Amino acid sequence: MRAEDLDEKFPVVKIDSAALDAVRLLAEHRLNGLVVVTDTSETPFAVLPASQVVRFIVPGYVQDDPGLASVVTESMADHAAEKLSGKTIRDMLPKQRQHIPVADADDTIIEVAEVMARLRSPLVAVVKDGKLHGVITASRLLAAALKE
Amino acid sequence: MRAEDLDEKFPVVKIDSAALDAVRLLAEHRLNGLVVVTDTSETPFAVLPASQVVRFIVPGYVQDDPGLASVVTESMADHAAEKLSGKTIRDMLPKQRQHIPVADADDTIIEVAEVMARLRSPLVAVVKDGKLHGVITASRLLAAALKE
Repeated sequence: MRAEDLDEKFPVVKIDSAALDAVRLLAEHRLNGLVVVTDTSETPFAVLPASQVVRFIVPGYVQDDPGLASVVTESMADHAAEKLSGKTIRDMLPKQRQHIPVADADDTIIEVAEVMARLRSPLVAVVKDGKLHGVITASRLLAAALKE
Repeated sequence: MRAEDLDEKFPVVKIDSAALDAVRLLAEHRLNGLVVVTDTSETPFAVLPASQVVRFIVPGYVQDDPGLASVVTESMADHAAEKLSGKTIRDMLPKQRQHIPVADADDTIIEVAEVMARLRSPLVAVVKDGKLHGVITASRLLAAALKE
């Protein structure tokens, strides 16, 4: 079994699209992350885990001092996603370019697993001929490893 | 909205149960992580992200030298889950006890989001009266933040 036999189609977001669109995709499809591409290339530029998108609904003063989370009132908390309006996907990516969890179409599941575990990523993007072919999630990889 | 209004029932695993059972649960239910409890308590002991379970199907020599992943043949790779037989959940947890992504039943979504983002966890366990009440995933939290 090779990465391209295992991967699935996943929604892709462009780096300069609205951050709220990414949140909607993650929420509606219950995804644990998204692959980000640039406007000019179909090669994955980044992977954005859902747990990191969550950071952007936390006010800056709470990120600086977690103890302050308890002072945010329920009504303020319920409008959390408003913080994202006007922001783009690019604004949610780390300032320093990170290692991208990416595998080649002909990689074995061990090669995919090694990248996923090392980068602690919930998903790995599979690339074939320089283009995104699909996505492998951790649970999908484990399901494949069980089938002997 | 409070954490207990948002959480969902999730399978729970006991710390001394078979590692393969956890892999099966993650694979069959397509979960991004599991809550681990001890035999004597219903309080969460740890959260085991699926991406970290994946590490245990990677041979030790590949973890030490990722370049060796390419020498693992396809037929060896396809039997990856066999490495887990005989192991328990406890064997898959980090040796040093880690911060547990946990929230109280009456926490706001900002408090849940703060914990999730800080610990980079795909899920947060919600505790009420000392017992596990449910689990909140990142995508579930984002869906709640969108509903205004």
